Amino acid sequence: MANFSGTIEDREEIRDLYARYADTLDNHRYNEWLDLFTDDGSFESTRFGKHEGRAGLEKFTRVYRDSLGGAQARHVITNLLFTIDGDAADASCYLLYSHCKEGRVQQSTVANYRDKLRRVDGRWRYQSRKVCMDGRA
Amino acid sequence: MANFSGTIEDREEIRDLYARYADTLDNHRYNEWLDLFTDDGSFESTRFGKHEGRAGLEKFTRVYRDSLGGAQARHVITNLLFTIDGDAADASCYLLYSHCKEGRVQQSTVANYRDKLRRVDGRWRYQSRKVCMDGRA
Amino acid sequence: MANFSGTIEDREEIRDLYARYADTLDNHRYNEWLDLFTDDGSFESTRFGKHEGRAGLEKFTRVYRDSLGGAQARHVITNLLFTIDGDAADASCYLLYSHCKEGRVQQSTVANYRDKLRRVDGRWRYQSRKVCMDGRA
Repeated sequence: MANFSGTIEDREEIRDLYARYADTLDNHRYNEWLDLFTDDGSFESTRFGKHEGRAGLEKFTRVYRDSLGGAQARHVITNLLFTIDGDAADASCYLLYSHCKEGRVQQSTVANYRDKLRRVDGRWRYQSRKVCMDGRA
Repeated sequence: MANFSGTIEDREEIRDLYARYADTLDNHRYNEWLDLFTDDGSFESTRFGKHEGRAGLEKFTRVYRDSLGGAQARHVITNLLFTIDGDAADASCYLLYSHCKEGRVQQSTVANYRDKLRRVDGRWRYQSRKVCMDGRA
Repeated sequence: MANFSGTIEDREEIRDLYARYADTLDNHRYNEWLDLFTDDGSFESTRFGKHEGRAGLEKFTRVYRDSLGGAQARHVITNLLFTIDGDAADASCYLLYSHCKEGRVQQSTVANYRDKLRRVDGRWRYQSRKVCMDGRA
């Protein structure tokens, strides 16, 4: 018996979910980003507060986009760790966030995510994401 | 049906390709690095321009090595995302590049790669890599 | 035949081991961290020297914890590469280490690990870890 939870396929899909989260957000493909959450999904951060449900998350994307002021954001995701239990999973990862403008990194943050995932309509999605900042560089 | 393209084995091999790219380049194993490209493979960066084919890439390794001036380079690769279609794949990843000398990080860059992969002789290889810099820290 | 060593399950377990190493250490779950090593396991770093066996590693965790002075450490792990041969494996990865206090990154290091793994009692564990610093940011 394998020393990890869930199937290899589940694990591959969840890994993919994490890369897609950053890819869609950093490239302003907000509709695709919204589809990575469950209908009642939530996102919470120290800086932006808590946003829930499709309408709440959609509003967050507008606030977030404005906050960038034209900078290129990069959500560098590492240290993904998760435990799958049927159609639910607890997960965490590390985040190195940077904010680039005019060829310079203007902001750099170390943080971590605590997530709850749920499989809905055959796809793993975020039910809740909470990002906690450790510090700014 | 799994929500990802290609087989698990393909995906594992491609992940391995990305780690090998950095490992061979950062440890000056340039012949192994060259073998990660197809015969007509290309590498393009903002800083170093475009280099094509075995001879072109080989020339690039010499220019690159000289540019280091004895520094230890680290290509930190994250956020790998790819879509496999038979023997071809589109892929992207993030790069945190650092350049260390005398115990100090002397250069630090955030960038992303846009890649085309092709399976040749049973192995996934880079057909083209294009690295775009976001900013320097 | 796949172009990688070991089974997919082995590889998934080893990836998990690397994420757990950072998770247990950064969250002060030192007993779980100790369980990731073989009984004769060793850890060696430029800064902390070499520590061997359960008692030696346990002593290291106390020294390490004291060295933090209440800071939140983050072992950001990337570029995992490994070759499995039966119940043994050679592995390496990159490390971006940060040390956060009062909302600031106070220390930041680029390093790499050279590891030997062994499967004991059906689980992959560290037999030896050696971390070499490239430079401080």
